[in-house]
Amino acid sequence: MSKNNSSPQQNQFANKAQAWSARFSEPVSDLVKRYTASVNFDQRMANFDIQGSLAHADMLASIGIISADDKAAIESGMALILEEINAGQFSWSIDLEDVHLNIEKRLVELIGDAGKRLHTGRSRNDQVATDIRLWVRNEIDIAIDLLHQLRHKLATLALEHTETILPGFTHLQVAQPVTFGHHLLAYAEMFGRDAERLVDCRKRVNRLPLGAAALAGTSYPIDRERVANTLGFEGVCRNSLDAVSDRDFAIEFCAAAALIMTHISRLSEELVLWMSPRVGFIDLADRFCTGSSIMPQKKNPDVPELARGKTGRVNGHLIALLTLMKGQPLAYNKDNQEDKEGLFDSADTIRDTLTIFVDMVGGIRVKADAMRAAALQGFATATDLADYLVKKGVPFRDAHETVAHAVRECEQRGCDLADLPLADLQGFHSLIEQDIYGVLTLEGSVAARNHIGGTAPARVRQEAERILAETTASQ
Amino acid sequence: MSKNNSSPQQNQFANKAQAWSARFSEPVSDLVKRYTASVNFDQRMANFDIQGSLAHADMLASIGIISADDKAAIESGMALILEEINAGQFSWSIDLEDVHLNIEKRLVELIGDAGKRLHTGRSRNDQVATDIRLWVRNEIDIAIDLLHQLRHKLATLALEHTETILPGFTHLQVAQPVTFGHHLLAYAEMFGRDAERLVDCRKRVNRLPLGAAALAGTSYPIDRERVANTLGFEGVCRNSLDAVSDRDFAIEFCAAAALIMTHISRLSEELVLWMSPRVGFIDLADRFCTGSSIMPQKKNPDVPELARGKTGRVNGHLIALLTLMKGQPLAYNKDNQEDKEGLFDSADTIRDTLTIFVDMVGGIRVKADAMRAAALQGFATATDLADYLVKKGVPFRDAHETVAHAVRECEQRGCDLADLPLADLQGFHSLIEQDIYGVLTLEGSVAARNHIGGTAPARVRQEAERILAETTASQ
Amino acid sequence: MSKNNSSPQQNQFANKAQAWSARFSEPVSDLVKRYTASVNFDQRMANFDIQGSLAHADMLASIGIISADDKAAIESGMALILEEINAGQFSWSIDLEDVHLNIEKRLVELIGDAGKRLHTGRSRNDQVATDIRLWVRNEIDIAIDLLHQLRHKLATLALEHTETILPGFTHLQVAQPVTFGHHLLAYAEMFGRDAERLVDCRKRVNRLPLGAAALAGTSYPIDRERVANTLGFEGVCRNSLDAVSDRDFAIEFCAAAALIMTHISRLSEELVLWMSPRVGFIDLADRFCTGSSIMPQKKNPDVPELARGKTGRVNGHLIALLTLMKGQPLAYNKDNQEDKEGLFDSADTIRDTLTIFVDMVGGIRVKADAMRAAALQGFATATDLADYLVKKGVPFRDAHETVAHAVRECEQRGCDLADLPLADLQGFHSLIEQDIYGVLTLEGSVAARNHIGGTAPARVRQEAERILAETTASQ
Amino acid sequence: MSKNNSSPQQNQFANKAQAWSARFSEPVSDLVKRYTASVNFDQRMANFDIQGSLAHADMLASIGIISADDKAAIESGMALILEEINAGQFSWSIDLEDVHLNIEKRLVELIGDAGKRLHTGRSRNDQVATDIRLWVRNEIDIAIDLLHQLRHKLATLALEHTETILPGFTHLQVAQPVTFGHHLLAYAEMFGRDAERLVDCRKRVNRLPLGAAALAGTSYPIDRERVANTLGFEGVCRNSLDAVSDRDFAIEFCAAAALIMTHISRLSEELVLWMSPRVGFIDLADRFCTGSSIMPQKKNPDVPELARGKTGRVNGHLIALLTLMKGQPLAYNKDNQEDKEGLFDSADTIRDTLTIFVDMVGGIRVKADAMRAAALQGFATATDLADYLVKKGVPFRDAHETVAHAVRECEQRGCDLADLPLADLQGFHSLIEQDIYGVLTLEGSVAARNHIGGTAPARVRQEAERILAETTASQ
Repeated sequence: MSKNNSSPQQNQFANKAQAWSARFSEPVSDLVKRYTASVNFDQRMANFDIQGSLAHADMLASIGIISADDKAAIESGMALILEEINAGQFSWSIDLEDVHLNIEKRLVELIGDAGKRLHTGRSRNDQVATDIRLWVRNEIDIAIDLLHQLRHKLATLALEHTETILPGFTHLQVAQPVTFGHHLLAYAEMFGRDAERLVDCRKRVNRLPLGAAALAGTSYPIDRERVANTLGFEGVCRNSLDAVSDRDFAIEFCAAAALIMTHISRLSEELVLWMSPRVGFIDLADRFCTGSSIMPQKKNPDVPELARGKTGRVNGHLIALLTLMKGQPLAYNKDNQEDKEGLFDSADTIRDTLTIFVDMVGGIRVKADAMRAAALQGFATATDLADYLVKKGVPFRDAHETVAHAVRECEQRGCDLADLPLADLQGFHSLIEQDIYGVLTLEGSVAARNHIGGTAPARVRQEAERILAETTASQ
Repeated sequence: MSKNNSSPQQNQFANKAQAWSARFSEPVSDLVKRYTASVNFDQRMANFDIQGSLAHADMLASIGIISADDKAAIESGMALILEEINAGQFSWSIDLEDVHLNIEKRLVELIGDAGKRLHTGRSRNDQVATDIRLWVRNEIDIAIDLLHQLRHKLATLALEHTETILPGFTHLQVAQPVTFGHHLLAYAEMFGRDAERLVDCRKRVNRLPLGAAALAGTSYPIDRERVANTLGFEGVCRNSLDAVSDRDFAIEFCAAAALIMTHISRLSEELVLWMSPRVGFIDLADRFCTGSSIMPQKKNPDVPELARGKTGRVNGHLIALLTLMKGQPLAYNKDNQEDKEGLFDSADTIRDTLTIFVDMVGGIRVKADAMRAAALQGFATATDLADYLVKKGVPFRDAHETVAHAVRECEQRGCDLADLPLADLQGFHSLIEQDIYGVLTLEGSVAARNHIGGTAPARVRQEAERILAETTASQ
Repeated sequence: MSKNNSSPQQNQFANKAQAWSARFSEPVSDLVKRYTASVNFDQRMANFDIQGSLAHADMLASIGIISADDKAAIESGMALILEEINAGQFSWSIDLEDVHLNIEKRLVELIGDAGKRLHTGRSRNDQVATDIRLWVRNEIDIAIDLLHQLRHKLATLALEHTETILPGFTHLQVAQPVTFGHHLLAYAEMFGRDAERLVDCRKRVNRLPLGAAALAGTSYPIDRERVANTLGFEGVCRNSLDAVSDRDFAIEFCAAAALIMTHISRLSEELVLWMSPRVGFIDLADRFCTGSSIMPQKKNPDVPELARGKTGRVNGHLIALLTLMKGQPLAYNKDNQEDKEGLFDSADTIRDTLTIFVDMVGGIRVKADAMRAAALQGFATATDLADYLVKKGVPFRDAHETVAHAVRECEQRGCDLADLPLADLQGFHSLIEQDIYGVLTLEGSVAARNHIGGTAPARVRQEAERILAETTASQ
Repeated sequence: MSKNNSSPQQNQFANKAQAWSARFSEPVSDLVKRYTASVNFDQRMANFDIQGSLAHADMLASIGIISADDKAAIESGMALILEEINAGQFSWSIDLEDVHLNIEKRLVELIGDAGKRLHTGRSRNDQVATDIRLWVRNEIDIAIDLLHQLRHKLATLALEHTETILPGFTHLQVAQPVTFGHHLLAYAEMFGRDAERLVDCRKRVNRLPLGAAALAGTSYPIDRERVANTLGFEGVCRNSLDAVSDRDFAIEFCAAAALIMTHISRLSEELVLWMSPRVGFIDLADRFCTGSSIMPQKKNPDVPELARGKTGRVNGHLIALLTLMKGQPLAYNKDNQEDKEGLFDSADTIRDTLTIFVDMVGGIRVKADAMRAAALQGFATATDLADYLVKKGVPFRDAHETVAHAVRECEQRGCDLADLPLADLQGFHSLIEQDIYGVLTLEGSVAARNHIGGTAPARVRQEAERILAETTASQ
């Protein structure tokens, strides 16, 4: 097989460094080249670019646009290129702008005219849309798995702490006692919804744009369903203009990532609070903490703090992508090149953060005594007293007011509700009897909340086991 | 039944204007009252608040917490309140902070102790979460319907213009001819995905938080599944802390709204461009345009411009909600009150905008001649010439370069490719023959793109009919 | 003076409800009218709209475009309109779209042709730009004053607490002791820069756009400097296209507002933390707190939490305005109408929030004992031990390591550094002597930091007094 | 001088790879190390880190904390390190986390104990705050200069086109004729304000945080004003807690950058529009354009499109920084490490974009004929007709309505206002006379707008010359 049977001067790539094509009278300046090139960041998609090209070549061969020999040449050339890339030996050039032209030029060098035939019936516009979708799909699969791993770790720890009681806070004020297991499972729920969102997003990502060509489709009798099938796409984009120009699937992914980081930021805030000496509910393993360059006593929860801060960048990328798409006329515009860096960084951020959190949850040491001591402060069982009265027939709103008086009295005496003698309690309401002291314990309070979603140890155990079962496959 | 059997001084609401409860030594100041009250905006949820209360009362009665009489009293009281609200006769008070307390106080006024029993086993924290979900669910249903109405209108217009040719642009440069129907259907695809996203979001909205009470569940043996069933929820939130504190469903809705507005902004940009005299592809019916206070000749496409601008507010609300949730510790914090105004405004914006666009698409007058004239400019069929050569065996990259030379020549002569004599064309490549002139017509070009997603009239007709069929129910 | 000497059918406003002008064949639909009208929110600028009109009329009279009689008629008409507006008796109509046309139509009703002459040499484009600038300028002045009031209150409280010691945290871990006054003054610095930013922003707001007319200026020999002078503008916008189309001054204001709220959010976070029972450093006056509908014992710091949440909306408005301006071609487009609501809400939010914080700072009750107890925990003076060694000649990095060993020992023993006997301390480094115990006290630690910006009581007193002096005018 | 007189096991840095300090029982994991390290991006500040260290050493020597020999050793060590860095020979290690520890460790290797003394009286917290401020200050100076260069280029081109007339658009509809020079100067005004904003921001950047140490100041008698003076700071941060923890100066810079990009996005939108064949007002030099991989005829305005898209990332970084600061308690938290990448990227983006625009403005080829032809379409002088009538005594609102009728007539006839015979014009208003035809010319229209800010050639010349004079220093 002749490997290079067209003369160099006819080769579009050879001129590329000088001028775009015969139509251009001057080359782009070096600054413009650097400003407009994407190869520094889009080379990350090389593997998917090659996958897409192979599927395209297979289809071109199936309909007779290229020969079986061309197809074989493309396959062997691409295999070599992939090796070069994986080995770090591929020479990326910003003169060739992007991952697509870099690979295609190398292919032409390696296999000649067969390489030049590969771009038949497609354009960089549909090619890049395909690459991004394959890339995002892969990241979604990784993120879903990590979310389930994290849920598994949370549920595992929750199962150890179905009976560990800490104060449940609202407004950072002590509200009612809850079990630590219950608290952890709140996050398992959030990350579960995050995984659901990615599953839904994946459906919209997983449609094939290839075949849209530049914007209008192509005059070759292409078989898009074959390509979709080869690449594992569930469907085919049904409008070429839409296929090359919209990036809503990437924005949807970034929005899902922003919610993941929002949930991470909440968990992080709590870890930081819980590790603060004034609270002291947990300790984090040293490997997630750092010291100070000046204060030798410090042990800082750097990882959750940094994760909390990284919420900013992921929110920022979401806005960046929304902003860049705003008001763009159809079809492809160069603005769209800006879709990648933010998208990549969002995916990297959730991947790294989730990975580290999976490990960190295992590094939480629970200080159950401090939790319990805190729950005994702050009248956490006041609601239980009100409920007790209601069960005896007092309208809730009246019971609520009665308890407020009792709490005020306790505050003045500096004691808890359970510390008041029965006579004094009865002074607030005559229906109070000796059994009230069972109601006012932490254990009584949590055990009583024994319905779906309640904090009772028995319920928490059930929920933790459900989540462990759901997430076993991710371990 | 005694309607008001507790003394006023025991009534929590009576004190409300003075102090929060017996525990408080001073009332909130007027500014604080105004600053923290939500009733001015959350009264929009009154209808759903009442629905939720009725379902709660029904459940309380079913487990014997309240009597059948109480339930009946609550139902008749709420019916009256709803009438008052709908008639604009309900007296909202910011002393009572929010929609929940306003309605509850009125209920107690109307029916006495039964009203005071309603709040048994719930809290405002799970109550408001329930109201918002019911509200958002309703807005989702409206928006999905509007999106399909808009798709229907787009497909209807597309069906009239399967053969109307305009230049397809990339980079606002003429790229290849496309049919106007094809162009319109690109938006029908986008709005179709927007509807899908709302369908997915709805699943996560449609879970019942009621029963989570303040944060930990309640000590009453509540039947949450009964309540879910009554209210049409598909499931029950499985963790009380999560149920009262997360608003990810609202953020997901706002993100979906932002994508809807992003698509609207793109369509708007094109409508504005197309109506500009330099382009002149369409005219918009006068009812969507306004004049100028100073320039008598002006007819301005105000509606699409304003819609484009409104993308900003919807993006802004998305960031607002993400920002307010960032780093919040569990469970409910007052920050969450800020979730509503942005959410409401996002929903209003997409509702109004989609409604007006449904009408406006019917007010587009197509200037097919101007479209065609524009498509004949700018070498729109250059790709077809390249494809022609490829089909004769020329490698694509070489064909591309050949055509670039031909285009350059045409530019110098000030003519189109189809204007070059055959001999001159053959000067660029010897394989060009007389049949090239069929390829270089606009009709030949679009008809050739006859695959799924292509711009060929036949395909556009199929796609338009598919979309019309899908959306018939929304008409 | 004849008040109404043109026939109604010639009156542009009379037709307004039917069609924009003689050029339009149909009126805008009701939905379009509602969608595009701004009068519901821009009527807030009525006062400034009238101010601008009066200055314009004065200038028109000065150059002889209108007569002295016309000017007098306009002045008396406007005075009446302002009275009607202030009395709530002005009838706003969305048929007349915006504040400008509503007022102008009423003026024509009141004074006839003189009213019709008012719009000579201007357009709504430059009129609205002028109104917004006057409005923003006023809000800036209010906000600057409030910022200084808040700084005054912070400095006043700081002066009472120059010697109150609490732990300074980094990473929410105890770092070094600081004085509470010093901590408060950190916020006084932040709000001081916020005020500076507004002063700078004001310069760019305070330039006159009037005279730009629709976009190109006007053919009347207007005297823009006279108008600027009348309205208190420091300069005149020097390009008409820019004057009517840019809103960067409003965005700059929104960015400054976002930083104010960012600072408020940090102070709020601390107030919430400090009020949490686990920390217990302060109590907030009851008037800034609310109770719970279900938990009678609760006292929630609603105001700082809500303020923290409101950071979201102000960030959101900033993004909204940036998004709406992105990619707008010159000159005025209807998108710009969207500049107001977010801007207004940002200004309202900082005004209400700062007002309430001025009051709330006075409602902080300091629990000095709890602060001191916390500072004694966590090796807050470890750095002082390291510094002690350095002063004796040990390189800092070695001293740091020595202290780390001592801290580790203390942790194992469960004691503080000051609790170690001298002999044990000397075991870590032989240069330690008896005087170390003075260094390890809280008072010694803070007093030693006696340089500009340091936490020493003497310095804090100086700084507090400086700030009090700077802000006296705002009291 | 003994260069390495402490044993390695006492060296904090030697242990760093194993554990943070003697207090830590395990090292950070590799993932944690990578997640928390900043050296990959903060090494960009190395030059400023060294500057800051030298100024600190100078001050320490001046007050006798270190010896003159130590100072000299530090200076020679740092000189060598700077050489290594500039030569690309410095070995950055993520084990050493950040730029500060990397440089400090190398310094200790080179000069021994003197290097260990450098960190006396400072902390990484104030050190990094100083580095960032120095870095931002430098970027501000560069950006201001570039903005003035761009203004110079715009004014230069404007001066060539003071009499070139194009249609001024509002709502992308033809409004009134303007001169192209006037249009260009609108952007010169915007970029002028952008430069003003940076000048104002610089004042707040240019204050010294060094001396704040970790958070509370230091017990050494440091001379902060000396350090400020050495480093060119205009003032000293007056509160140590504020100095180490706030980043408002960086956010203010990012907000200013977002406005620059907003203005760039508007200019870009116009360049893209103007280059579109339907408009055809300009051509951009080939070096700013690229071709298509599939459409040989394409010449795409890639640079302005990409710049428009980059608005997104800069808006995104602004939100990222605001989000990360939201709700952070004092003082330093690890979240703050996230301040840099977005800040750096914003600065890079405006630097590259402005640089390329300075060049690109010189590459604009004006197609004056197309501009003029467009201005003759669309009744651009209708306002002039109305003004003509007003000057004859017709109230403006009546004149406006008269012209609307004339325009409607012209539209039906398919002609311009100037094409109507005098008799027909007089049919619309009897005061119209022969001199109207002078008013209806493009030249008459623009020349009439001869006041400050107006589009008249004489004014544009004055303004262009003013701007050229202002910006000469930047050429």
